[in-house]
Amino acid sequence: MSNIKVGLVQHTCGSQKSANISDSLAAIAEAATAGAELVVLQELHCSPYICQVEEVEQFDWADPIPGLTVQTFAEAAKRHEIVLVTSLFEKRAPGLYHNTAVVFEKDGSIAGKYRKMHIPDDPAYYEKFYFTPGDLGFEPIDTSVGRLGVLICWDQWYPEAARLMALAGAELLIYPTAIGYETTDEEAEQQRQLDAWRSIQRGHAVANGLPVVCVNRTGFEPDWSGQTKGIHFWGRSFVAGPQGEILFEAPQDRACTKVIEIDKDRTEAVRRIWPFFRDRRIDAYQGLLKRYLD
Amino acid sequence: MSNIKVGLVQHTCGSQKSANISDSLAAIAEAATAGAELVVLQELHCSPYICQVEEVEQFDWADPIPGLTVQTFAEAAKRHEIVLVTSLFEKRAPGLYHNTAVVFEKDGSIAGKYRKMHIPDDPAYYEKFYFTPGDLGFEPIDTSVGRLGVLICWDQWYPEAARLMALAGAELLIYPTAIGYETTDEEAEQQRQLDAWRSIQRGHAVANGLPVVCVNRTGFEPDWSGQTKGIHFWGRSFVAGPQGEILFEAPQDRACTKVIEIDKDRTEAVRRIWPFFRDRRIDAYQGLLKRYLD
Repeated sequence: MSNIKVGLVQHTCGSQKSANISDSLAAIAEAATAGAELVVLQELHCSPYICQVEEVEQFDWADPIPGLTVQTFAEAAKRHEIVLVTSLFEKRAPGLYHNTAVVFEKDGSIAGKYRKMHIPDDPAYYEKFYFTPGDLGFEPIDTSVGRLGVLICWDQWYPEAARLMALAGAELLIYPTAIGYETTDEEAEQQRQLDAWRSIQRGHAVANGLPVVCVNRTGFEPDWSGQTKGIHFWGRSFVAGPQGEILFEAPQDRACTKVIEIDKDRTEAVRRIWPFFRDRRIDAYQGLLKRYLD
Repeated sequence: MSNIKVGLVQHTCGSQKSANISDSLAAIAEAATAGAELVVLQELHCSPYICQVEEVEQFDWADPIPGLTVQTFAEAAKRHEIVLVTSLFEKRAPGLYHNTAVVFEKDGSIAGKYRKMHIPDDPAYYEKFYFTPGDLGFEPIDTSVGRLGVLICWDQWYPEAARLMALAGAELLIYPTAIGYETTDEEAEQQRQLDAWRSIQRGHAVANGLPVVCVNRTGFEPDWSGQTKGIHFWGRSFVAGPQGEILFEAPQDRACTKVIEIDKDRTEAVRRIWPFFRDRRIDAYQGLLKRYLD
């Protein structure tokens, strides 16, 4: 048996960094008290979703690694003796920023980091302005609770990312995310988008025989430029098992801290009955390295 | 507008080849009468699912291409002026067989063929005994109703296959399949498997912004070796739109011929709001060509 208790921390974020961090820290404590050995925070949990507008002032939100913010979460991991997946706006150098998940060990040391590889850019999600695409590849992070396939938000739409983490031995796929409804979308379109987001991540679970932990922010955040009507982040953080079965889903419209037990060994059982890795046609996949086959 | 009326033909198969073919032909006629321009048959629709047992006698079911069976379906395509996706047990040479989808044009000519690339082998699904893995790659087939990304059954578990078809310009993903419950599986496991099968294919739709047409056989077929308790094929042929939204789902336990209208142009709209192809990290996908990254 190799069960792991994973804490999911879904909350709103406001304009005060210290308040956002306090919210995360309180929920980490709550999850740890409830037995979590691994806690996963949502994407960019220290700030509002700044990418709704392209403004140079927003770079003030970024943190160096190491730095004060990193130190704060390192201490939380150590205090609660948990492995902690954070999602930070990394300032690597003047003019060079990444969307970076920093993973802390139970002793507060940095187990590893992942820099978001696929960067979106859509109205209200202007991430290409802020984040240089990751240069660390799709490398799982080894921790005392297992080898973690940490990816971030937009990565969740790419089967390639999940597959590469799985091929490198990841035991869990983990997605901190920040996604929601554009307020003017009609309800049917909102529902299709939510279902699509769930379907594709459940699909990654199935294709790779891996559990998926997805932690999304909740709450409404206005677009202060007035260009759009703001984003209703749709919460609904979830855990799926290695057949894509939903083990837990958080509510849409409010904060939620929840500890879910995942049986990592089910990967072994599921991959025995569905041995997809056995039959991959690696002799015929060269086209995957092309932009388009025209 | 570029709507296409697709006919799905889900039925049982018995031990008489002529009866199985008659069933398919009657359903093709029904779908054509209902306006279908494209008709998709289920996997290996001319025979029972022979792969429940490894027996050399079963090779008698195979057909050469061209040959009498091919001629029969060519004539049906021509008679009804439809594009027709069939799924045949191809005898290519003595001792060399494939699981092959032959696609016919409206004039009865062969538009192209696809040989199943990923071959399963599990108790009651001994396909590796019968089928040499395909050697035609993941090439869409151009027809008068569009460029068709035809894949077959086990391929449906591989995001790589769907992606390669999409990158090569497929406008629809099409999966003839033959999958069902092993009768002794407990009900919760049966439900997880069915959901997984739907989730991963809906995921292919989402990842690639493409509609998916999946046609599965129905009915119970005994395992004449007595090794297992036979397969309840789960029917539930379905059509999903390019956000993975279910447009139609057939019943589980009976034959079903249905014509569904698909708006191929929604791919354009969906790929504008979700431009996943723009951001693929082809510089970092080399690992996809490896068996495992150890």
